[in-house]
Amino acid sequence: MSGSDAETYSYLGPAGTFTWAALGQVPGAAGKPWRSVNNVGEALDDVVSGRSVAAMIAIENSIEGGVSATQDALASIPNLRILGEYLVPVQFVLVARPGTALADVRVVSAHPVAYAQCRLWLERALPGHGHIPSPSNVAAPRDLLESDVADAAVAPPGITDHFPLEVLAEGIGDNPNAVTRFVLVSRTAPVPARTGSDKTSVIAELPSDEPGSLLEMLEQFATRGVNMSLIESRPIGDALGRYRFVIDLDGHILDERVADALLGLKRFSPNVVFLGSYPRADNHRIEVSERYGDDSFLDARDWLRGLISGEPS
Amino acid sequence: MSGSDAETYSYLGPAGTFTWAALGQVPGAAGKPWRSVNNVGEALDDVVSGRSVAAMIAIENSIEGGVSATQDALASIPNLRILGEYLVPVQFVLVARPGTALADVRVVSAHPVAYAQCRLWLERALPGHGHIPSPSNVAAPRDLLESDVADAAVAPPGITDHFPLEVLAEGIGDNPNAVTRFVLVSRTAPVPARTGSDKTSVIAELPSDEPGSLLEMLEQFATRGVNMSLIESRPIGDALGRYRFVIDLDGHILDERVADALLGLKRFSPNVVFLGSYPRADNHRIEVSERYGDDSFLDARDWLRGLISGEPS
Amino acid sequence: MSGSDAETYSYLGPAGTFTWAALGQVPGAAGKPWRSVNNVGEALDDVVSGRSVAAMIAIENSIEGGVSATQDALASIPNLRILGEYLVPVQFVLVARPGTALADVRVVSAHPVAYAQCRLWLERALPGHGHIPSPSNVAAPRDLLESDVADAAVAPPGITDHFPLEVLAEGIGDNPNAVTRFVLVSRTAPVPARTGSDKTSVIAELPSDEPGSLLEMLEQFATRGVNMSLIESRPIGDALGRYRFVIDLDGHILDERVADALLGLKRFSPNVVFLGSYPRADNHRIEVSERYGDDSFLDARDWLRGLISGEPS
Amino acid sequence: MSGSDAETYSYLGPAGTFTWAALGQVPGAAGKPWRSVNNVGEALDDVVSGRSVAAMIAIENSIEGGVSATQDALASIPNLRILGEYLVPVQFVLVARPGTALADVRVVSAHPVAYAQCRLWLERALPGHGHIPSPSNVAAPRDLLESDVADAAVAPPGITDHFPLEVLAEGIGDNPNAVTRFVLVSRTAPVPARTGSDKTSVIAELPSDEPGSLLEMLEQFATRGVNMSLIESRPIGDALGRYRFVIDLDGHILDERVADALLGLKRFSPNVVFLGSYPRADNHRIEVSERYGDDSFLDARDWLRGLISGEPS
Repeated sequence: MSGSDAETYSYLGPAGTFTWAALGQVPGAAGKPWRSVNNVGEALDDVVSGRSVAAMIAIENSIEGGVSATQDALASIPNLRILGEYLVPVQFVLVARPGTALADVRVVSAHPVAYAQCRLWLERALPGHGHIPSPSNVAAPRDLLESDVADAAVAPPGITDHFPLEVLAEGIGDNPNAVTRFVLVSRTAPVPARTGSDKTSVIAELPSDEPGSLLEMLEQFATRGVNMSLIESRPIGDALGRYRFVIDLDGHILDERVADALLGLKRFSPNVVFLGSYPRADNHRIEVSERYGDDSFLDARDWLRGLISGEPS
Repeated sequence: MSGSDAETYSYLGPAGTFTWAALGQVPGAAGKPWRSVNNVGEALDDVVSGRSVAAMIAIENSIEGGVSATQDALASIPNLRILGEYLVPVQFVLVARPGTALADVRVVSAHPVAYAQCRLWLERALPGHGHIPSPSNVAAPRDLLESDVADAAVAPPGITDHFPLEVLAEGIGDNPNAVTRFVLVSRTAPVPARTGSDKTSVIAELPSDEPGSLLEMLEQFATRGVNMSLIESRPIGDALGRYRFVIDLDGHILDERVADALLGLKRFSPNVVFLGSYPRADNHRIEVSERYGDDSFLDARDWLRGLISGEPS
Repeated sequence: MSGSDAETYSYLGPAGTFTWAALGQVPGAAGKPWRSVNNVGEALDDVVSGRSVAAMIAIENSIEGGVSATQDALASIPNLRILGEYLVPVQFVLVARPGTALADVRVVSAHPVAYAQCRLWLERALPGHGHIPSPSNVAAPRDLLESDVADAAVAPPGITDHFPLEVLAEGIGDNPNAVTRFVLVSRTAPVPARTGSDKTSVIAELPSDEPGSLLEMLEQFATRGVNMSLIESRPIGDALGRYRFVIDLDGHILDERVADALLGLKRFSPNVVFLGSYPRADNHRIEVSERYGDDSFLDARDWLRGLISGEPS
Repeated sequence: MSGSDAETYSYLGPAGTFTWAALGQVPGAAGKPWRSVNNVGEALDDVVSGRSVAAMIAIENSIEGGVSATQDALASIPNLRILGEYLVPVQFVLVARPGTALADVRVVSAHPVAYAQCRLWLERALPGHGHIPSPSNVAAPRDLLESDVADAAVAPPGITDHFPLEVLAEGIGDNPNAVTRFVLVSRTAPVPARTGSDKTSVIAELPSDEPGSLLEMLEQFATRGVNMSLIESRPIGDALGRYRFVIDLDGHILDERVADALLGLKRFSPNVVFLGSYPRADNHRIEVSERYGDDSFLDARDWLRGLISGEPS
């Protein structure tokens, strides 16, 4: 839980949480010190202060805490950069001490939000059971080993790698397709190389709240053939009716069309935060029509130079 | 917790939660049976099945559970209608049994998400305290009266109306401005009258995932002078790259410009869910330029009729 | 050249001009009195005053006079309506008195604009010839019969139906594909029925001269799937930088998408002149995607009514 | 009428025409050989072949010949460049041999198009007069000195500088505000310096004839805050429904926003012809909001470089 600053990774702990699972997907974090923190504020504070080289935080559809706070923090804390995104399926298992049968379970320990998400299954399989709340998805199973108040616990899959427990049931969550998206955040650094399957995240304010103002901002992307995979409005909070937008773009800042769209966005918006260009978790390759490929941008610049110098075409 | 279907209101309970506070803002719910449920799925199920006349659910920035699930449920469960929106400040107090002083507090009971949001204050004011998780923001204070395991509890303001507890500290949350937005949802019903300060909520899919497709959809609003106060993309989940958008519009479906924009949206989008037109929680009056006022729409229709019939102007 | 007002047609004469040829394409004008006038002002004045039931005037790419004047007249004279459009190929023949051979031609009579358009051919075929200007494309050939000052004349094809002259050469114009577009204009009248191959002409002013204002106006068409086949800016003349736009739309005012676009245009523009919906000269059928077909508009209105009344879907 | 190629200017002659008056506004043409030609084709051919350094041609609202031909020629002849624009009021005077009184005039000599434009005045002032057509606005007055067939001639103002004639009446045209716009065209050359009051002319094709395609092209201008002062559609002629657009932009290719818009246009359009950036005839200074000024573009590029290199902001 400690170590040299330049190597430590912060995450919402303890070990075994979904955030911990996300950090486990980062090759560079293997074998480095991991620092368990309590919320996104602490995680980003570790990064800003240099206590950690990077922090893993939930950015979309989280079960372990709201993402509005994450978005607002990223909008207001300067000099952060997203290094990568990671998807973790939000699935649950029911675990118990070895030798416990499902029929023996009377009391279930669970983080309240996880409990709510498994409630349908629990009421069907364990009618009349009791619920003991737990501060985290890891504390719930861990405490089974320290106390027999509960007979079973709701936990993330893989928890049995950490504790000598047995799985009584898998896939007990209401939504079998739920996924949480995490991002690994560091201080500002040079952008990584393009992979052909990249995403660019920005947060931008509108110059005014007139109808059509958002449209005008999005035209900056459309006129360069840049697709969005996420847009969310967030009230800025300083005055009624002012909004910022959290936006994910298909492509990398070193793609000509994305760079050009960012230039347009910068000129249009009174406040743009560039959060980073990084490989997509889904490895989906971005298809771009020839019109918006890099060559199209280079050719246009050659053409413009020719026009100015007056070369015959 | 029971009563005639036509009068019961469902909410994420128990009494004292933020959702309960939101329901308390509904004049029509006063004196009617309130039904405490465990999550948004149960709440909407009550409405669909007729167990309740309406349900209060968090739709934006919730501390008591994710809102993605709410948005996805509203997109996929047919025949629901939002009747109104309600804002509840997400503030916390520290409460204890009468006679307890702040200096006496060693162990704090709290819902884990609430605990995370008050952590800064708790660590400063109560260094070395212990945390006992609680399944809800109401169970935490209530259990103080049944057990002395904890000395104090994190709770919503107003909890002392329910339990004979004393407030040790107010405003202990990290974010003093946090607000959760709730909506009251019923089965489909005629739209309520206009108030001049209304909001219209829709969920719409894009016909394709080409860059510019969202822009084309938003032009349906901009060309009628209709402003958006919220837009959020959500992956539809049936195939890569397809999105639906949760959108709040300024105005009421009986406003000519909003009706006309909805017609355009219906023609453009392969799937539109109209969630309702209802009074805004902030009572902010919508200002519309003359160009997009009702008279402008009526005048244009008169003009068109004259053109077709061939009357000289 | 006279007759009852209700039956007379005005045109830029005399008989034999391209405008006359255009009027010859109008079935309803056959056998009715035709009134030869000198310019578009006189022609429209005949219509306004009731001297004529309709007037044929050039609106695009005319050889017999500017079209800016036509556009400006249509923008400012109220209560006019275009009944139809007619295309006339602008081709020329060289004609002479019977017995004249091409080698005998020394002096050519021609309207100066026609002469300029045939100059390449004339200089090649008749080097050293002289030019006698003529007030019209009809006067040039006609005068060959009254005087022998000129040996040959530049004339529209078909002139030999009017005068006992012989064609020495055909297709002598520089541009073999030149076509002039004419419109038949009456006082305001009910719009004719749809043919499936229709055009709608309007003239509209922008509310301001800001960049993006034209874009906003054209979005009124694009959001309804309405294509433009012509757009021309014309300075309004009352102040620097104010423009009106002459626009032809694919489709008929009784097409739902066109009607809806016109309503949007009317609300947006401070001054819209509807010139008419009428059959296209090229008989090209308008293809419309299902999204913008009449049924799509009717379905959307049914949907909206259902939303308001609160019927379950 | 001859001279070294590098110094000769071509114009629609002879001396005294409106085109000649436009060429008289060009300081660099003073004292150089001027070459009178018969139409825009000859004028541009002189430029292409090197017989002339530049040619003056009418581009908007011409009385001396159609401008469609000019626009089509500029779209299809490569390597031309507009050097400047010139406005000439299209006004007419009635001139006669010295000693002639207005009351004596029985026969008027006039170019047919000029005659049509003065017809209202002539019919009022000289009822019953005869018309002798003339091949040009200059031949009409000049011939008064060689023959007494006509008593007076319609001519451009200033004609008395060329011929010993007297003005009988001024301002005899129907439209006292008519103006023709001319451009001076050379072969491709480096663009001239910015003056702050510049115009940029381009001709661009749409990639497809779908509704919305023009809108998408114009967004290239609007997203950079570039205003248009002229737009005209012209059918390309190679297939039904394909259009090119003649467009004038406010500003100079060396203005950052115009350069950026041209780059966007080049990428979007399958065929763009840059006709030049040149001083506006009206000397109207272009006002640009700070958002689209040169500094905004330079700042955005600095910002982008910083993002890529990873400098903290």
